[in-house]
Amino acid sequence: MVFDLIKRYFAQHTVTDPRIALGIGDDCALVNPSPGMQLAISTDMLVSGRHFFPDADPYMLGHKCLAVNLSDLAAMGAAPVAFTLALSLPEANPDWLEKFSQGMLALADAHQCSLIGGDTTKGPLNICITVFGELPPGSALRRDAAQAGDDIWVSGTLGDARLALAGYWKELKLTPTEHSQAALRMHQPSPRIALGIALRGVAHAALDISDGLIGDLGHILERSNVGASLHIDSLPAGPVLSQQPLAKQREFTLAGGDDYELCFTAPVAQRAAVIAAGLASATPVTRIGTIEQATGLRLLDDFGQPVSLQVSSFDHFSSP
Amino acid sequence: MVFDLIKRYFAQHTVTDPRIALGIGDDCALVNPSPGMQLAISTDMLVSGRHFFPDADPYMLGHKCLAVNLSDLAAMGAAPVAFTLALSLPEANPDWLEKFSQGMLALADAHQCSLIGGDTTKGPLNICITVFGELPPGSALRRDAAQAGDDIWVSGTLGDARLALAGYWKELKLTPTEHSQAALRMHQPSPRIALGIALRGVAHAALDISDGLIGDLGHILERSNVGASLHIDSLPAGPVLSQQPLAKQREFTLAGGDDYELCFTAPVAQRAAVIAAGLASATPVTRIGTIEQATGLRLLDDFGQPVSLQVSSFDHFSSP
Repeated sequence: MVFDLIKRYFAQHTVTDPRIALGIGDDCALVNPSPGMQLAISTDMLVSGRHFFPDADPYMLGHKCLAVNLSDLAAMGAAPVAFTLALSLPEANPDWLEKFSQGMLALADAHQCSLIGGDTTKGPLNICITVFGELPPGSALRRDAAQAGDDIWVSGTLGDARLALAGYWKELKLTPTEHSQAALRMHQPSPRIALGIALRGVAHAALDISDGLIGDLGHILERSNVGASLHIDSLPAGPVLSQQPLAKQREFTLAGGDDYELCFTAPVAQRAAVIAAGLASATPVTRIGTIEQATGLRLLDDFGQPVSLQVSSFDHFSSP
Repeated sequence: MVFDLIKRYFAQHTVTDPRIALGIGDDCALVNPSPGMQLAISTDMLVSGRHFFPDADPYMLGHKCLAVNLSDLAAMGAAPVAFTLALSLPEANPDWLEKFSQGMLALADAHQCSLIGGDTTKGPLNICITVFGELPPGSALRRDAAQAGDDIWVSGTLGDARLALAGYWKELKLTPTEHSQAALRMHQPSPRIALGIALRGVAHAALDISDGLIGDLGHILERSNVGASLHIDSLPAGPVLSQQPLAKQREFTLAGGDDYELCFTAPVAQRAAVIAAGLASATPVTRIGTIEQATGLRLLDDFGQPVSLQVSSFDHFSSP
């Protein structure tokens, strides 16, 4: 039964990558890494009721679970190779599994990322994916590589996913059109793989924004032992959020979760190269601040004046 | 908080392996595979109340979760390199986490297997590990490689883990000493890594026995498109089980779960080499049957007479 489930919905996924010597069905998958390349590996676990609603659309859920993992590869500048999927399911629901696997495998195919192994068990809904990418040694965009004087950049737009959540939670009143547009950002994030690869040798530090810009940028600052100033009115609010009051825009761009955009730093001398990387990967990039020697994070308004805001990062052990 | 948890209990694990370019703390870990080696990758998810008791001793649970994954590497003939850990926890219990991480990391150190990444979230207790090993290309012990005429072998002993479960379930009355000895096999399996490596170039097919010998051997037969005869009175019952009535010994050696021994096939000409591999890895090996052209599995007694037994394999979607 367990084997049947995996076979029926996932093993149909034809692996044509010559690096995959053996896929699903044995004790292990076998992978031949490209000669001379370094592996990038990341794992993420998504739990029903915490990372997604229990009644989440299975196609979109399948997409999102893989997308958040691919986003970690993007944040390193790695190209996807393969992934494993472990699934705990309350019941073996063929309709749910079919849509879930379709959403996941469509995104996998779009990024030439082969499903090479899995595990299925009965239990509370829980989805754990481990992804493998590759990149030339020395080219990874690490969190500890920011340098004082670097520009801070962000890809795409921020805050629409958080706005959608505010709509679900009835924190804000959104029109049905607004809500469905914002919800698309929440449910269907686009991993910025092409941008991450284009930023190799251009950017210094990078990460993907999953828990909110301030908290995630804080990881770069801490690991690199630097500080930063952020121009909060330069933050690119999502198209739906940008119709909301300024205070909400600031709050949700700074501390909204689930954006899965890249935040990265690059030397001033690389501004043209960053813009070229954005164009080459068809990904908007916006310069939002500066890395500084003095530790701490300073928020500045359009006039360069300090702004004091109470925002906090997302934490799975404290948030509702 | 989430980062703190991982740091406090797991990141203390010092990685000294030169293949690990970057461990815990960034978007991805970075690994430099040994030149020319193939990667073996496996993932397993363990759910509270299904794979272990909710009140399981955390040290032993930490050991077991990694052991069942290392066992998959052993079954391929791969040497461990690294693993990732994703944890869903109902609460952040420092005492539990300390013991759990100690049990896991002690086994990791014993096998030079570095913890390189993780994810922690709040939710029903769920532990998902993905392991990475390496081996020379072409040397993997695959399930589809059994050939008619091969001997069938098993490592160690079978059935004591199932006997312990019978004790917990009150299916059988065991003395406290019997139960605690059998329970050690259930809670502290030893992944047969050294044997797996020693069997490279000697064995044809292999897998690890997690759901019971019959069901797991069935995977080799199916994938290799062959059949087999098993001498059921040659099966090496565990030291506690061998004190039980013959019918129980047969049932639990054939269909007990949680053994984590290797079942493998090898040409008759390799009998001396198999025994040498067992000695070199300090692992008992027992010859238990023959791979045959005719599909299906035949059980034979000491006199070569067919035995009819009703036993079924373990399935997480149908078992209690």
